Amino acid sequence: MNEPIVDTVAIIGVGLIGGSIGMAAKARGLARRVVGVGRDGKKLVRAQQLAAVDEVTTNLFAGIGEADIVFVCPPVLAALPMIEAISGFLKPGAIVTDVGSTKTMITRGAEALIPDERYFVGGHPMAGSEESGVEAAVPYLFLDATYVITPTEYTDVNALSTIVNFAEGLGSQTVMMSPEQHDASAAIISHVPHVLAAAILKLAAEEQGRSGKVFELAAGSFRDLTRIALSPPEIWRDVCLSSKDAITSELKRFEEILSEVRSQIESGDDQALLQLFSDGKQIRETWVRNEKRGE
Amino acid sequence: MNEPIVDTVAIIGVGLIGGSIGMAAKARGLARRVVGVGRDGKKLVRAQQLAAVDEVTTNLFAGIGEADIVFVCPPVLAALPMIEAISGFLKPGAIVTDVGSTKTMITRGAEALIPDERYFVGGHPMAGSEESGVEAAVPYLFLDATYVITPTEYTDVNALSTIVNFAEGLGSQTVMMSPEQHDASAAIISHVPHVLAAAILKLAAEEQGRSGKVFELAAGSFRDLTRIALSPPEIWRDVCLSSKDAITSELKRFEEILSEVRSQIESGDDQALLQLFSDGKQIRETWVRNEKRGE
Repeated sequence: MNEPIVDTVAIIGVGLIGGSIGMAAKARGLARRVVGVGRDGKKLVRAQQLAAVDEVTTNLFAGIGEADIVFVCPPVLAALPMIEAISGFLKPGAIVTDVGSTKTMITRGAEALIPDERYFVGGHPMAGSEESGVEAAVPYLFLDATYVITPTEYTDVNALSTIVNFAEGLGSQTVMMSPEQHDASAAIISHVPHVLAAAILKLAAEEQGRSGKVFELAAGSFRDLTRIALSPPEIWRDVCLSSKDAITSELKRFEEILSEVRSQIESGDDQALLQLFSDGKQIRETWVRNEKRGE
Repeated sequence: MNEPIVDTVAIIGVGLIGGSIGMAAKARGLARRVVGVGRDGKKLVRAQQLAAVDEVTTNLFAGIGEADIVFVCPPVLAALPMIEAISGFLKPGAIVTDVGSTKTMITRGAEALIPDERYFVGGHPMAGSEESGVEAAVPYLFLDATYVITPTEYTDVNALSTIVNFAEGLGSQTVMMSPEQHDASAAIISHVPHVLAAAILKLAAEEQGRSGKVFELAAGSFRDLTRIALSPPEIWRDVCLSSKDAITSELKRFEEILSEVRSQIESGDDQALLQLFSDGKQIRETWVRNEKRGE
């Protein structure tokens, strides 16, 4: 058991992510005390029964008043209003961090809201599960996961260091980048792909409606491609709304690439098409090879 | 063992698909004699050793002269020139069929080339493997696979019936549609997705080149999405070139959908975004449920 990094951690929103943070923090001795905060008393009691937190309260301000670190873990669009609500009740030296899957809106917004002598450090632990809620929480959720931390030119160095230590204490590998860089990368790796999956299913359904002859040809590769479309629609709506600039910018560039490829097909440009597919294969192979080397 | 459907089958190009057709035809007694035809004598001998065919010849015209069914199994762009080359040497009543993954160019082209009293029926057995070559051939490759057959207004009913029987004899489930319908459906289910995989890897590599901060965020869903980019580039170049109209038409509609979604994100149209992701989830769930019911 390590020396605790801080005395008190408050977790607002003790679901899959918040609950797993609490369990890992307790199991790994990262804090002396973990307080679960939320609106739903029953869910909080369940979180306490599952040993995700030591204490619970439905009183937001009491819950965070003594916290050295406040983890804000609501749905992504609710994070900033929540940070605004608690900002006046943080003790001096308190650090607020979040776990949202988009970072620019929350990080830049929080920096404008947090008072002097309190700090904000944005974070995105890239771990999850197909399930949700505290019942699915496990203390090893973040083990060997990538935990992105998004400092800016305004981030306090000591606060940053504390959150990095905490994330590594959870068992994760931390990666630092600006919130804008995070959102550009996440748009390419995850957000645009979710749009593509929904869009190809829309195209397939349109043709299925006309001819009835699409899905009987669909096989394993179409299944792989569209698996991400099973994610909760509300979450992906909110991701799109909370990271408009990055997603529309990457989507626009993606449309340009598609339009170029379409011209190459139309004009029968065999060299360009061979290049496209060869490059794609090589990029995929190099990435997976490097990923394995890093394990 | 069934009564043979025909006396002699010739297979031009005894690789993974051609070899598996030969093995299945022999194992299931679909023909009295299976002749392997190709340019490479060594490969043909290997095919014979593996019992994919009964006899082999590098003489194209001798090989097909006695065939009741000729399976043309070269790379997709080589099929039509090969059909043109053999068309004058087919015996009366012979049926030529192919296994190409695009169908309009081959089917419409072959219909214009095949002489009177000889017949063409296009086919696309939707089975494969990550490997290629006759070494990877297996007699059960087509078992329970979907075998698309693409008759047109010019297709001879008896020839069609023979090819349907043969495909079902291989253990496949046959599905009939026009070559144009096949190519539209395959564009949506397979060809456009391959373009998308290559295009998202291009986008990722561009951003990786600028920031170096993309691939470290990539996880399982990006892996699933881009797995199809590992397919041989030459095959996908040729698919694009052999089905220009269908692929560019579906790609164009796909770009329209993406552009609509981009506008919805820009304007913060939460209703439309929720609809997009909800519809996508529902289409995916309904398809997989129906697929399971059909098993």
